[in-house]
Amino acid sequence: MFEAKFQSFDDPATPTASAPRVAALRTELARRGLTGFVVPRADRHQNEYVPASEERLAWLTGFSGSAGVAVVLAERAALFVDGRYTLQAREQVDTALFEITHAVETPLDQWLEQTLTAADRLGYDPWLHTGEGAEKLAKACAAAGATLVPIEPNLIDALWSDRPSPPLGPVVLHDLRFAGEEATTKLARIRPEIAKLRADALVVSDPHNVAWTFNIRGCDVAHTPLPLSFAVVPCEGRPSLYIDGRKLSNEVRSHLEALADVREPGDFAHDLSALGGANKTVRLDQATAADALARLVTAGGGKSPRGADPITLMKAVKNSVEIEGARNAHKRDGVAVTRFLAWFDREALRGNLTEIDAVEALESFRREGGLLKDISFPTISGAGPDGAIVHYRVTRKTNRPIKPGELFLIDSGGQYQDGTTDITRTVTIGKPSPEMRERFTRVLKGHIAIASAVFPEGTTGAQLDPLARLALWQAGVDFDHGAGHGVGSYLSVHEGPARLSKLGTVALKRGMILSNEPGYYKTGAYGIRIENLVVVTEGPAVAGGEKPLNVFETLTLAPIDQRLVDRAMLTPAETAWLDAYHARVAAALGPLVDPPTRDWLVNATRPLG
Amino acid sequence: MFEAKFQSFDDPATPTASAPRVAALRTELARRGLTGFVVPRADRHQNEYVPASEERLAWLTGFSGSAGVAVVLAERAALFVDGRYTLQAREQVDTALFEITHAVETPLDQWLEQTLTAADRLGYDPWLHTGEGAEKLAKACAAAGATLVPIEPNLIDALWSDRPSPPLGPVVLHDLRFAGEEATTKLARIRPEIAKLRADALVVSDPHNVAWTFNIRGCDVAHTPLPLSFAVVPCEGRPSLYIDGRKLSNEVRSHLEALADVREPGDFAHDLSALGGANKTVRLDQATAADALARLVTAGGGKSPRGADPITLMKAVKNSVEIEGARNAHKRDGVAVTRFLAWFDREALRGNLTEIDAVEALESFRREGGLLKDISFPTISGAGPDGAIVHYRVTRKTNRPIKPGELFLIDSGGQYQDGTTDITRTVTIGKPSPEMRERFTRVLKGHIAIASAVFPEGTTGAQLDPLARLALWQAGVDFDHGAGHGVGSYLSVHEGPARLSKLGTVALKRGMILSNEPGYYKTGAYGIRIENLVVVTEGPAVAGGEKPLNVFETLTLAPIDQRLVDRAMLTPAETAWLDAYHARVAAALGPLVDPPTRDWLVNATRPLG
Repeated sequence: MFEAKFQSFDDPATPTASAPRVAALRTELARRGLTGFVVPRADRHQNEYVPASEERLAWLTGFSGSAGVAVVLAERAALFVDGRYTLQAREQVDTALFEITHAVETPLDQWLEQTLTAADRLGYDPWLHTGEGAEKLAKACAAAGATLVPIEPNLIDALWSDRPSPPLGPVVLHDLRFAGEEATTKLARIRPEIAKLRADALVVSDPHNVAWTFNIRGCDVAHTPLPLSFAVVPCEGRPSLYIDGRKLSNEVRSHLEALADVREPGDFAHDLSALGGANKTVRLDQATAADALARLVTAGGGKSPRGADPITLMKAVKNSVEIEGARNAHKRDGVAVTRFLAWFDREALRGNLTEIDAVEALESFRREGGLLKDISFPTISGAGPDGAIVHYRVTRKTNRPIKPGELFLIDSGGQYQDGTTDITRTVTIGKPSPEMRERFTRVLKGHIAIASAVFPEGTTGAQLDPLARLALWQAGVDFDHGAGHGVGSYLSVHEGPARLSKLGTVALKRGMILSNEPGYYKTGAYGIRIENLVVVTEGPAVAGGEKPLNVFETLTLAPIDQRLVDRAMLTPAETAWLDAYHARVAAALGPLVDPPTRDWLVNATRPLG
Repeated sequence: MFEAKFQSFDDPATPTASAPRVAALRTELARRGLTGFVVPRADRHQNEYVPASEERLAWLTGFSGSAGVAVVLAERAALFVDGRYTLQAREQVDTALFEITHAVETPLDQWLEQTLTAADRLGYDPWLHTGEGAEKLAKACAAAGATLVPIEPNLIDALWSDRPSPPLGPVVLHDLRFAGEEATTKLARIRPEIAKLRADALVVSDPHNVAWTFNIRGCDVAHTPLPLSFAVVPCEGRPSLYIDGRKLSNEVRSHLEALADVREPGDFAHDLSALGGANKTVRLDQATAADALARLVTAGGGKSPRGADPITLMKAVKNSVEIEGARNAHKRDGVAVTRFLAWFDREALRGNLTEIDAVEALESFRREGGLLKDISFPTISGAGPDGAIVHYRVTRKTNRPIKPGELFLIDSGGQYQDGTTDITRTVTIGKPSPEMRERFTRVLKGHIAIASAVFPEGTTGAQLDPLARLALWQAGVDFDHGAGHGVGSYLSVHEGPARLSKLGTVALKRGMILSNEPGYYKTGAYGIRIENLVVVTEGPAVAGGEKPLNVFETLTLAPIDQRLVDRAMLTPAETAWLDAYHARVAAALGPLVDPPTRDWLVNATRPLG
């Protein structure tokens, strides 16, 4: 009945014959007088999703996870993955070839320091490591008396005979009715920021920032409308945009040429060298700029100070058109989620649904809503104990029937042209246990504490994150992720620089969109998460107040399962929040859904108080 | 009637004739081929309180504040102070000689980068700057094409003809009935920490850590029982303690010689060079180790990695004897503060008291309580608008009469042999305004939120700090300091590494003592702060809980002014906290105070609820 177009449920590949590949790499190492070579899961922009042409780590090791790095020495090889991936790595990788190492307990640099010996020469591709990453490797090598050697082009590429071509996703204009600000105005705001940083030019190495600045979108990677590209914005004069011309229609090209010199990716290195040769100070983004960029600038005699790309903060602060777009996208998304929840409520109790059925149904409802370009990430659909696996992704093999008496957690989102969404709902199939209700209510109290927070201008996400946890702490439990992340505007669903987490040291500014997603996970039993997106807006004026106040406006519209709420645990203010939220959901979505869904919605949003 | 022995009320000195001193320094600079010299307000340990012999900045500029740095060039000179001190600096310093510069808006390194020119040579004393501080200066010099040059001995010392001798405060043993752990056991716990850091030895450059490790106390600086000294603790073998032998009685010397090689301060540099010469890895404390130490170690060929001194964390976690000592010290301190509050309540309404009268009375009550060795910092006694100056210190000139209708804030503490105290109370003289009560109640809500917090092991002070602010944020106000700082055990009243503030990234551990001190300051009108010390203790077991929980036990015992509490603003839980606290105060202190004070106490602690 339903099907998924934007995601697959393939099982991770079983061990491939990576032995001949590793052997070929070792031959090449010997030929070049290298002791080893580092292969990270990374592209030239440190993207979360990378194109198939950049999956060198998977080609070499068989490991297909989204984070990891391998190092191959003459006699030893190791793959470093974090806790999420240790099991998967053991299934996918030939452990006779690769030691699987826990990247947090024994980080790569520590392993190198202990393993390399004097006069060793370790190769790395300077395009796939940030400057900071390369410095860490170099330091580890130096501590062992070894040397880190930049190698271009990447050694894997010569061995990988059927390597896919780099993607050539057509670039489209991001219309002003979605973007809300002309690219010329954005560039006029960016230039003084570069001057403030005392730089002559800024390298935009994050393609999200290129997309935002020039009001374009692409489709080079999954789930994020990225046009893979670089830009250089000088303090004075025309920017340069480095993008494969085959991605550009005449219309897009002429839009871009009005703003910048449109050049081929192959010109980028040459132009950076030239900037260096002219002794320019070229600012690099510490989060995404490849080590190669700094090497090109400094080799010519230029300076390449690292720091935050100022565009990252500008992009995070959405303008009124983007915020209105987000409100509209959330209405359509809310309709899809509400139709899904109503359907699920009818079907699940019959006991015939699986996790994959749920994903397919939800995606189908989303596709019917209009302006949907993609989902914003592979749906997390976890029944019972699978819900407790925070990064769970269902495959044909793990696909679990959804059973009465269990909880079901579904975390999903859409890429609409007017906004990116991300929502998690946890629902009960049949009657929940008292413990499930008690835990759910504590998660809800945390969600409400964030949603109704009032905080002065300058407050950081790190300061608000604990509000999501206080009710859980009282019961001796917690959750092991941030309370929220920034979200793009028809861009990445994970967007910096602000976040609600210990690491969220950036001040929250009006217009930032973030997720509000406390949770609780009981290993082997169930998972709970309640996630809405919120936007930072001006707070109410208070008589005698001395500081401008901010609050969150909740964007996401979909019922929260009241069968899981223990109303005795809520304060009057919390009950009032939930009732007001549900009244808003019913009023906004009621007119937009079919009659059976509307009936379900009325019941699902009836006031508690 | 009362008098202060431990503090004075002298006005800051008026401009001294610093012109000839600056001229003499410039002659010396020219003779040595230097462009300039940096004079920080610092000793060799980066202490908060420094002995008179280290007040080079005051000698040169006249500025007597507790933080600042001057730089003297051939034609220009500048003094850098933070916002607290800009007014005072203008009064004390000859501004024809020194530009007064705001250290946050234009930090020294930025000023140097803009002011120095190529080939300039800037001198600094490597004993008075940390390694990190010296690196910052060197980087600023390099950016200007100039060179930073270490100069020993300090240029000021040769010019300062009547420089006081370094202090020779007698060292005393810190008895096991206060310390709770033998020095041998402490050393046995320290050694594996050094091994974990992969170092051969640890330099203990923080004299607080020397005092803790060897169970000694001294009296070389004001308000903190510090024995100025260094130590070197090797991974294996005997530690060395560098301390002027004239400070040691035979008893103390034999205690120390059982633990360490007791050497003269003059041997320290030689021994560090020798460690370097033996290619040792010598760990330095990044917060207190002078740049000179790293230079000595590395000159010989050793390594000097920087990081936290592990003793800092060990010292912060008080043992059961120290905690019991703190409880006892707080009983005596509570008696003194309660006698003061009762006396103040009788006297203040008559309108004859001044801020200095209050300081003298409180110190006198403290001295009568036993085991008091000093106050723990100069008392902050602020009536009306003076209460809004967070770092206010009353002098004969600023001394303000205490008037009915105003609030009065008093922040003070004692150095008792069994514990260090720090308490702030804000009281009303006569009837407070509704706004004063409303603000006071919000501060109290923040205080109670911290005092009654329940949090899992691993929670940091940064996570709890916002709890102190939520009620203030609701009203559009906030306070501009952390919610609390660590406190020593008969050591510094400001002790790292934990704190309740944005910067408090260290996990709170059971046994840590911290202050809980939210506030609100209305410039030109009044200040409010409610401060108690708390100790981190094991929380109650919760059925179904998964994480060990911690709570705070409040140590400080003294009434909180209920005339300033708007009970309608408190939740039932908050009222219950306040009533339980007051019941505890009344029960603990009632039997220990004179009958008139007891009558006052009974009334001051009557239940609200």
